[in-house]
Amino acid sequence: MAEPFGIGLLGCGTVGSGVAKLLLEQPGRLAARAGRPLVLRRVVVRDPRKPRDVALPPGVLTTDLGEVLGDPAIQCVAELVGGTTWARQAVLQALAAGKHVVTANKALLAEHGAEVFATARRHGRAVAFEASVGGGIPIIAALSQGLAANQITSLQGILNGTCNFILTGMTENGSAYADVLAEAQRRGYAEADPTLDVNGTDTAQKLAILAHIAFGVDVLPSAIECRGIADMQQADLRFAQELGYTVKLLAEAWLRDGQLALHVSPVLVRRLTPLAQVRGAYNAIHVVGDAVGDTLYYGRGAGQMPTASAVVADLIDMAIGRAQRSFQTSRLWAGQEAGITLLPAHSVRSRFYLRLLVVDQPGVMAEVTRVLAQHHISIASVVQHESLDEHEGDTVPLVIMTHTTLTGHFRAAVAGVDRLPCVMAPSVYYPVAD
Amino acid sequence: MAEPFGIGLLGCGTVGSGVAKLLLEQPGRLAARAGRPLVLRRVVVRDPRKPRDVALPPGVLTTDLGEVLGDPAIQCVAELVGGTTWARQAVLQALAAGKHVVTANKALLAEHGAEVFATARRHGRAVAFEASVGGGIPIIAALSQGLAANQITSLQGILNGTCNFILTGMTENGSAYADVLAEAQRRGYAEADPTLDVNGTDTAQKLAILAHIAFGVDVLPSAIECRGIADMQQADLRFAQELGYTVKLLAEAWLRDGQLALHVSPVLVRRLTPLAQVRGAYNAIHVVGDAVGDTLYYGRGAGQMPTASAVVADLIDMAIGRAQRSFQTSRLWAGQEAGITLLPAHSVRSRFYLRLLVVDQPGVMAEVTRVLAQHHISIASVVQHESLDEHEGDTVPLVIMTHTTLTGHFRAAVAGVDRLPCVMAPSVYYPVAD
Repeated sequence: MAEPFGIGLLGCGTVGSGVAKLLLEQPGRLAARAGRPLVLRRVVVRDPRKPRDVALPPGVLTTDLGEVLGDPAIQCVAELVGGTTWARQAVLQALAAGKHVVTANKALLAEHGAEVFATARRHGRAVAFEASVGGGIPIIAALSQGLAANQITSLQGILNGTCNFILTGMTENGSAYADVLAEAQRRGYAEADPTLDVNGTDTAQKLAILAHIAFGVDVLPSAIECRGIADMQQADLRFAQELGYTVKLLAEAWLRDGQLALHVSPVLVRRLTPLAQVRGAYNAIHVVGDAVGDTLYYGRGAGQMPTASAVVADLIDMAIGRAQRSFQTSRLWAGQEAGITLLPAHSVRSRFYLRLLVVDQPGVMAEVTRVLAQHHISIASVVQHESLDEHEGDTVPLVIMTHTTLTGHFRAAVAGVDRLPCVMAPSVYYPVAD
Repeated sequence: MAEPFGIGLLGCGTVGSGVAKLLLEQPGRLAARAGRPLVLRRVVVRDPRKPRDVALPPGVLTTDLGEVLGDPAIQCVAELVGGTTWARQAVLQALAAGKHVVTANKALLAEHGAEVFATARRHGRAVAFEASVGGGIPIIAALSQGLAANQITSLQGILNGTCNFILTGMTENGSAYADVLAEAQRRGYAEADPTLDVNGTDTAQKLAILAHIAFGVDVLPSAIECRGIADMQQADLRFAQELGYTVKLLAEAWLRDGQLALHVSPVLVRRLTPLAQVRGAYNAIHVVGDAVGDTLYYGRGAGQMPTASAVVADLIDMAIGRAQRSFQTSRLWAGQEAGITLLPAHSVRSRFYLRLLVVDQPGVMAEVTRVLAQHHISIASVVQHESLDEHEGDTVPLVIMTHTTLTGHFRAAVAGVDRLPCVMAPSVYYPVAD
């Protein structure tokens, strides 16, 4: 067997402990798969006295990154700290010190991918990041290798387990947003501060990474239109169900005529499609390629061992030398692919779900549909019920499904509708997947 | 850019034409992904005058395998002929001539994998076979690379699009087996002679390949218990639906206490599980790993361009040099993994669906349940309806769902039940997935 492959771990929280467990508890399995032993040489942490989920051998734990950087027996660093401050510096230093880097850090890649990849190229090192999107699902490998013969034409991902858990709970149990969020926090599916999950930021970071790989576009998360689920109301989930749809927080990308549309939004998905069936804390990514047609990848998008599974797969790839070949060949974060431009949000064509709260009086439907017609919005269906419990009295919800339209036209129409005296509250709308 | 990577195609039928199309129509895309041009140098066919789906450049078509074997500008052969006679010889000769081999030939690998892989190792060449299972779904890469940190503990696959198309049609439209088969043939989803699809042989070959990769076991398709769908009756699909299940032809493998159970069979799958949602000619593979938990891979399992997508992904991997690294590290078809033995079929624990045709008279239920109890079979639920249309008069179907039991006990019980005078026809039974 070839010489050992030495690993330095940066961070020993949930995921780091999981990686350490696999390395320490399954040395035979991993050596067989990698063709050489994977040896955990150092674990860098901030507080060495903190209790951890794994029993590290004596002498492995350190607070000094220099002990990793200066150790010639460490070929690869696994960065599992997260964030873009210390982690960014540590990754750049590790590459400069001649270490390959495996990371689960979606924020780092989405925000500083160009810098990280350029540094790696300059030092002849490789970066692998399977764990950064979709947890244990091998979606990065599927896009960059398994589907390499294809031009990807669209992708739709459920990329945040917290949001999917909340939406599933709200849909299936009729619970309120705050109650399901509290349950997710009790179960460890949501952080104490869930902001970056529920406002869509986490999903947008992952979409930026997938868009780099699938379309070669250089896009920052901040440039992606993003709506989260924090203002999701029970009424809209119920109306969606009634219309044959389920609401999912999706990262979506479509390529048409050389223009790429990207967004993160709650979307109405037809109930019998595979994505609509993805429940609870699971993730799934639906990818369409021009040769392969549609494919789907499903699994746990977060959690200690699923994420560790992806990190260790990357470590094995590095030990084999496969990840280096992939990295050298790929042109990730190496500047914009010729010929693909970003489509501005207002030019994206979509169907829409629109819920209005209107006065229950004659002529309202005529007024609303007149404004929509002025903006060239064609109506596919209308549902008007009697008052919901929470809106007793003289207002009723009016739900309209549109045909495909330009987002810009649709938003202008909504603004117009909201100015009508018969419309009693700001309208709620979501895109509808084809 | 590095020197061109020369390819010789063996066979130019449906899949071969698809591969040739990708190579000829997307040279820029493929060169970018592979880091060097992929050049189609020769296509070996039996009859060069046969009309084909692709316009080959002059001089490429030949009937002489020697023109490929002797061409130093060809580094890799893609075998897309199928079968185990000419294809086997051609693959062995190509390896001996120093060519890497990409193949979509599941029968060749399942039956002669050991010989093919040993020959490749002897000559320092690599074999890649992503297209042999699951068409365009990158399941081979997922198992061997993406999930490399895991011990796979179970897998369940819908691996034959023809069978899934037939079962979906029978379930959703209430059609008879023969009618849906005829429709599948009209649509090109089933061959003129569908025997190897509908009797489960194709699925067993694919399971043998997956079992090699996931569990390191050396198993021939003939050693796998295999039932197809050719005798599937409408009544059982209907009863399954009523009980909350859908019937799928599954390849299944479970590892428990170092023993591996393998079979191919129609199985009752709970209707809300992801596998139950896989409709029509699609394939899907559900894989559970000890770190990653459960994952699922879904896509088109056959067809010209989906299969070509997988073949060309392998060609790109070869051009990059990644496939060679994978092949050198893997121990596929290199002898049985220590510690995993095959569990004999009678020792497999499972729940079962059992349909009896019984005389409609007092005491029948007591007789049947007495025989089951004698064989330690515990009953989970019973459904007895009035006579089906096709069984008018004095017989009625009796459907029993058992608790988990040993397959050997269950089969002995069924033999006992079938000997009862009140049981009017051989019983029908299927396993039920957990």
